[in-house]
Amino acid sequence: MSLPRTIADVGEFGFLARMLPRLPGDGRVVVGPGQDCAVVRVGARSVVLTVDALVEDVHFRAGWLSPRQLGRKSFLVNVSDIAAMGARPRFALVSVGVPPTYPARDLAALQTGIVAAAREVGASVVGGNLTRAERLFVSVTLVADAPTRLITRQGAAVGDRVYVTGTLGDAALGVRVLQGSMRAARGATAVRRYREPQPRLQAGRVLVGTGVLSAMMDVSDGLVQDLGHICEQSGVGAVIRSVAVPRSRVYRALMGDDDSLALRGGEDYELVFTVPPARVARLERLRTRLGCPITHIGDIVTGRRARVLGASGALRAMRTGGYDHFARKP
Amino acid sequence: MSLPRTIADVGEFGFLARMLPRLPGDGRVVVGPGQDCAVVRVGARSVVLTVDALVEDVHFRAGWLSPRQLGRKSFLVNVSDIAAMGARPRFALVSVGVPPTYPARDLAALQTGIVAAAREVGASVVGGNLTRAERLFVSVTLVADAPTRLITRQGAAVGDRVYVTGTLGDAALGVRVLQGSMRAARGATAVRRYREPQPRLQAGRVLVGTGVLSAMMDVSDGLVQDLGHICEQSGVGAVIRSVAVPRSRVYRALMGDDDSLALRGGEDYELVFTVPPARVARLERLRTRLGCPITHIGDIVTGRRARVLGASGALRAMRTGGYDHFARKP
Repeated sequence: MSLPRTIADVGEFGFLARMLPRLPGDGRVVVGPGQDCAVVRVGARSVVLTVDALVEDVHFRAGWLSPRQLGRKSFLVNVSDIAAMGARPRFALVSVGVPPTYPARDLAALQTGIVAAAREVGASVVGGNLTRAERLFVSVTLVADAPTRLITRQGAAVGDRVYVTGTLGDAALGVRVLQGSMRAARGATAVRRYREPQPRLQAGRVLVGTGVLSAMMDVSDGLVQDLGHICEQSGVGAVIRSVAVPRSRVYRALMGDDDSLALRGGEDYELVFTVPPARVARLERLRTRLGCPITHIGDIVTGRRARVLGASGALRAMRTGGYDHFARKP
Repeated sequence: MSLPRTIADVGEFGFLARMLPRLPGDGRVVVGPGQDCAVVRVGARSVVLTVDALVEDVHFRAGWLSPRQLGRKSFLVNVSDIAAMGARPRFALVSVGVPPTYPARDLAALQTGIVAAAREVGASVVGGNLTRAERLFVSVTLVADAPTRLITRQGAAVGDRVYVTGTLGDAALGVRVLQGSMRAARGATAVRRYREPQPRLQAGRVLVGTGVLSAMMDVSDGLVQDLGHICEQSGVGAVIRSVAVPRSRVYRALMGDDDSLALRGGEDYELVFTVPPARVARLERLRTRLGCPITHIGDIVTGRRARVLGASGALRAMRTGGYDHFARKP
């Protein structure tokens, strides 16, 4: 038997890789499993599809998010995948599992959060499913209008620049505060960042729409991890300059020079993208239209991995094999 | 506080009713929450969307379905909703939660079942999500091509005839066999019916495509319950003749004249539909194209409920307020 024994050994990426394929010859599947989103043809249009679930005690602890925040966040983590395609969210289906003792007031708040998130991004909740479950879960499917250009994780080329939006590491810092391993008073901003994600829809649409990119994905599992996917799927390597990775004021106050959460922390829902040198000048002219700052953090090189150039000049090879919910408890 | 205290009090229908709406003024939502499926516009096309989840210890017990059967069934219960719209399934997204100790071999079998079901109905699995969870769940989202005509639960009118496809009660009988309250040897057919649903895609497409219907939905929660939804949403009543409700040979052998499972048992995934009198002759000419038998079981009358006319001539009013996974353990 060459099969690994449990799911912890397979991991999500193994699952998706096996989560087979399109049927042979279905020309309507433009982008299949393995990207942030699938892209399919519907008549003359292309439609972007994505699904993601948040599960209690896997992705969050009961006290970390209010029901309203959980509803909103469950929706917006999917929007972040849509943002990474430069697409426009339109319709949502929500599949919710709750323990029979879950207070109806909390369910109402959860729904309010879902609907609030839908409104924020201009989408409609068109259907749903509620079931009993041992542990709370919220699975959201989004349907989005595809942009004219398709950007995936596969287009990065040696010489391209690597950029990220916003700042990194704040959400992971927020989790540390919630876990009690950081002083809460100073960490309120980071906790808010964890609880109230702001996917980069506008930046994603402008970046894809103007054609300045070669590859993009959202940073949900940590910069090194996610940039690693771009490297693997593009057949390139990357070198990130640690000092260039954008960190917030609260991050610097609480973490000092420790870059670990900025490089590895998940749930920031920023975008990481690559830009060919010939298009950097055009990118620079777009800055004011993105709705958030962007930072040049490194470059695409030969190889197959994302590596980090420390302040000391040492090049750290970093594991790219996967942040995985099965590998840890929240 | 007028809010009920727990989810058991709210129920799925309460959840969906509150699971708000389309944003004001989104003309692209053709059919919103509260039907088997949503229908939305994408360019010049209409697309049908649906989501449903199966959860261990809520919808099934571990020993009742092999992992492959579970995968297949999780997919096909959604296909049944698509069948009820007369639509054509095209794309699927799968969100799976499994305990970390779940054997990889079982996960592979689960996936095989999902992909097998997709192939059976001509759909492509284009994306998915795998997460850790306390209890196994499989949530499937389907995207389907809408038919030219839209049939919902809302068109039934007084005088219409009520029909069902196939036979009813077998899946519930199969559950009794699995629970040990029926002799297993004679119940094998019923168990297979529970484990291996066969949604009525062809019948649904022909019935909708030929324009003979006034309303339709699938029978997933039991005939009286589901016909009750047609009654409520159409503002009519229904009378079913108990003796006319089609039952299989194994059902008659094990249940005798007891019609309770045929009237109330869930998970048969047949179709119940209504036909105006003027179109009955056309319906009769379609029989050979449906791929399954259909039976005239009663009529639409005034009122708001589905009632059953017993062999004795007594009219039983039946609760239509909802089979609900929160109200019982499997």
